[in-house]
Amino acid sequence: MILTQITELVAICAKKGISNVILSPGSRCAPLTLAFARHPDIHARSISDERSAAFIAMGIAQQLEQPVALVCTSGSAALNYFPAIAEAFFQQIPLLILTADRPSEWIDQYDGQTIFQPDVYGKHVKGSFQFPDSSSNPDQLWHSSRIVNEAINLANQFPAGPVHINIPLREPFYPEVNEQLVFPEKPRVFSVLKSKTIPTDESLVQFKNRLEIVQKIVIISGQQRPNAQLQILVDNLSKDLNVVIVTDTISNLQSDQTINLHDHWLGNEAISEELKPDLIISFGKSVISKSLKLFLRKTQASHWHVQPDGMAKDTFLRLTRNIGTSPAFFLHWLNQNLGVQNADYYQAWHTLEKSVAENLPQILNKETFGEYSALAFCLSQTPSHSKIHVANSMAVRYLNLLGKRNQEVICNRGTSGIDGSNSTAVGCTFTTKEIVTLITGDMAFFYDRNAFWHNYTFANLRIILLNNHAGGIFRLIDGPKNQPELEEYFETRQNLTAQHLATEFGFFYSKVVNQEELEASLEDFYEDSLHSKILEIETSSPLNAEILKSVKEKIKTAIQRQ
Amino acid sequence: MILTQITELVAICAKKGISNVILSPGSRCAPLTLAFARHPDIHARSISDERSAAFIAMGIAQQLEQPVALVCTSGSAALNYFPAIAEAFFQQIPLLILTADRPSEWIDQYDGQTIFQPDVYGKHVKGSFQFPDSSSNPDQLWHSSRIVNEAINLANQFPAGPVHINIPLREPFYPEVNEQLVFPEKPRVFSVLKSKTIPTDESLVQFKNRLEIVQKIVIISGQQRPNAQLQILVDNLSKDLNVVIVTDTISNLQSDQTINLHDHWLGNEAISEELKPDLIISFGKSVISKSLKLFLRKTQASHWHVQPDGMAKDTFLRLTRNIGTSPAFFLHWLNQNLGVQNADYYQAWHTLEKSVAENLPQILNKETFGEYSALAFCLSQTPSHSKIHVANSMAVRYLNLLGKRNQEVICNRGTSGIDGSNSTAVGCTFTTKEIVTLITGDMAFFYDRNAFWHNYTFANLRIILLNNHAGGIFRLIDGPKNQPELEEYFETRQNLTAQHLATEFGFFYSKVVNQEELEASLEDFYEDSLHSKILEIETSSPLNAEILKSVKEKIKTAIQRQ
Repeated sequence: MILTQITELVAICAKKGISNVILSPGSRCAPLTLAFARHPDIHARSISDERSAAFIAMGIAQQLEQPVALVCTSGSAALNYFPAIAEAFFQQIPLLILTADRPSEWIDQYDGQTIFQPDVYGKHVKGSFQFPDSSSNPDQLWHSSRIVNEAINLANQFPAGPVHINIPLREPFYPEVNEQLVFPEKPRVFSVLKSKTIPTDESLVQFKNRLEIVQKIVIISGQQRPNAQLQILVDNLSKDLNVVIVTDTISNLQSDQTINLHDHWLGNEAISEELKPDLIISFGKSVISKSLKLFLRKTQASHWHVQPDGMAKDTFLRLTRNIGTSPAFFLHWLNQNLGVQNADYYQAWHTLEKSVAENLPQILNKETFGEYSALAFCLSQTPSHSKIHVANSMAVRYLNLLGKRNQEVICNRGTSGIDGSNSTAVGCTFTTKEIVTLITGDMAFFYDRNAFWHNYTFANLRIILLNNHAGGIFRLIDGPKNQPELEEYFETRQNLTAQHLATEFGFFYSKVVNQEELEASLEDFYEDSLHSKILEIETSSPLNAEILKSVKEKIKTAIQRQ
Repeated sequence: MILTQITELVAICAKKGISNVILSPGSRCAPLTLAFARHPDIHARSISDERSAAFIAMGIAQQLEQPVALVCTSGSAALNYFPAIAEAFFQQIPLLILTADRPSEWIDQYDGQTIFQPDVYGKHVKGSFQFPDSSSNPDQLWHSSRIVNEAINLANQFPAGPVHINIPLREPFYPEVNEQLVFPEKPRVFSVLKSKTIPTDESLVQFKNRLEIVQKIVIISGQQRPNAQLQILVDNLSKDLNVVIVTDTISNLQSDQTINLHDHWLGNEAISEELKPDLIISFGKSVISKSLKLFLRKTQASHWHVQPDGMAKDTFLRLTRNIGTSPAFFLHWLNQNLGVQNADYYQAWHTLEKSVAENLPQILNKETFGEYSALAFCLSQTPSHSKIHVANSMAVRYLNLLGKRNQEVICNRGTSGIDGSNSTAVGCTFTTKEIVTLITGDMAFFYDRNAFWHNYTFANLRIILLNNHAGGIFRLIDGPKNQPELEEYFETRQNLTAQHLATEFGFFYSKVVNQEELEASLEDFYEDSLHSKILEIETSSPLNAEILKSVKEKIKTAIQRQ
């Protein structure tokens, strides 16, 4: 009976370290639901909107760095998972997606919830398996347990990512009343031993020869989780060897030794010229700063990308070497083998950094109240030991402009969508007792409000909602702001505030429109509470645009004075 | 310049009868947005949540029976369209999906919003095209205009359905300030002349011979829009020739001549035996009634399915003939060529129908207040000339149990998901001044609440919300109701009422918990108003389950007395 294969599937998941599952209600998936809910080592939660369910699962997996299982019924449920699956794929987060299905003979026969589920996620999963739909032959039992092992191994291997198992199920879906589900004590498990890739001695000699003729190295750290070992290695490269380390807010590698405020000056051609490197070394995933990317694309530098496996991305159009090893290995080797780099070049970057770091707080202080200065003030109150989730569009751009953070910064930069940031943050709260601050604009916030539609608590979530009643980013980029269609079709003005939503879902809520109210609201915002809290900062989109422009001008002047 | 190809695309759309577009905000799609927004013959609306946007578009297309265009930016936006696209595919509703994309060389290079968009909808679109990403060669202009023509023709051809054009766009996305977009006066248009398929004379002779030996014909009408011509044809077949016409609520072919209440007795084996037909003739799409499908699968009947083109579905496991013509042609021919069928057989069906029709209202009247009787009462007040949208799960099942409706009944039975019924109903309101009543359970309603998050009015929408604070269907089917996981993982209990949502989005709102309140609320519910209205009927899920069982028992007794 298929139930044997399902209980074995769940037992294998548990043995292989899957400790969380997000279920969505359905009848076709009932055997999976029951087996996961009853397994003693797996924490099951039920989330009704599959779009949010998948982002919540991803938010958990992102923190635990282990696959989270997702279970949904047949039909369009699986399609609602898709935005989160694409995000997980490009952000390299492991997920085990289990979609219940009708047996293949029943697909597309006008009989209930069916779509074409096999391979439905296309290139956005690392692998796609079709579970056997019966167990009449022992080979099928061998097959089903093998699929589960292969899928989880694949999800975990570098680069980690989502893997899909489509599971056709026949009735009956439910065990008898009071029937126990028996999990096999020793389910069949096979795993991949961890291994590491290191360059050959010949490659290292080559690198060393090549490095002897460079004087201006920029290391770019893309998106990644905090990593104390890498932090020491890059800090030392900066301190001891004059290597310029440029870090975006999502690199989680910002320190006093690194360049964090480059977004303020890299757009300025006159200044950028002398900053052009001979060699770009990068690791991690994407970077946020568009001006950094444009700047690097205009250089004549070589670009080496370091990652354990697979093809590197040619983000800066300058890729010359794909270094197949871990960033830790390579940066360690670099510390030991690189000579001291050009001091003037190093100083040019750090003088700019220092200038912005000194001037920005005062400039913001003197500005009219708007989301830029309000966010800066909020961040000054955010507990050091906590996590910051930040939504796409303007929220993450402001954060990047505001420089070094001590907190872990998390953002859905895989596909850079605005569709799942609330849910991802909620998933994060399920993994930690620390405060999780979500910084979001109004479009992303209301888009994903079903993140809160379930019965689980997330009292450690604090939401800073920058509500300018529009997709304010469209007023800040050159093209749309001059079009008559700006408000209806680009900004898409919307009048909501979070007040009703807060009442509905049981948030503590306050709304502020000036600095005084902001300071008052923040006094106890980060205190422990029984409920999550929303701090809504209401500002005007045209005014925010003016402030951003004004700050940019003032920073430009301050830099020129230097 | 690519803008020429985009203005031509929009001009072709207009020439080929596309009168509506749903845009979602984004920068990559700006050329499309501007061209659609500025075209004088196309009504453009902007909806921020792409999941809702696509269901709204589908709701419009469903009524207009012409493609609606959808425009979104690159990245996960396209994935949020997917649930509605699958629904449109299986429900055979034409859509023209235009997804802006980066040029192919920029995909998967850690540079902003990209996923793998070409062919992303897999088998769930009728066709998928890649727009040329430049116009440096005249062949590319020929290609782009050809693609638009082919895509729209394909979307319209039987069976209608969604078609995807992926459109890579390079910067600049915006025309200069005050630059006029010039639409070509005579864009290149080629169309498919409408043709019809009719059986050969030999086939008709064959049919006629075969029909001479049957005495018990059941005609099943699957989902379709109201059709006065077909209504007369089936009514005549029933009245004049004793053909049993079985219609679900979504067939929109219910009359005093048809069998509408079969769901009340077809589950009863003892009764069903004498109702078994010799021949099943079907047309249209899916049927709702599970007991009807199970009943037909147990017969030895032949099954002929009538549709102009393509392979028929073998829903009843008995398919023997695929009749490639229009239902109107075939039913007309049948009226002229079929002999009178067995009168006893015909009477057996109609006696049951009459018995339920006479007893059900009294039985419901005497029952405790619950969603079953409340809905029956609501329907008695619904204006005759109006449209009813009904959500999946229990809402559509209740409607089917309650028998003949005069209103057009619409339900997302393509994939039978609960994900887009609000949005589909909102789309419908954009096409008519008549009242649109949405009947929905709480799970479907809250799932798709972003249907209301935009700036367009839909004052003719009336929502009857059956709120039992759970997916009540799971208590009504045998398996889950006996599992300890019922409430958390199947029903997924949720405590919301629609009150906050109503305030937030500006609905008139009333909540009722008994018959008196219901009657009071309905007094002016259907009167014209400036805002849409929600009537929330709050009931208890366990009590609803008891009522459903009790009504079933009483109907059984009434039938036996007959």
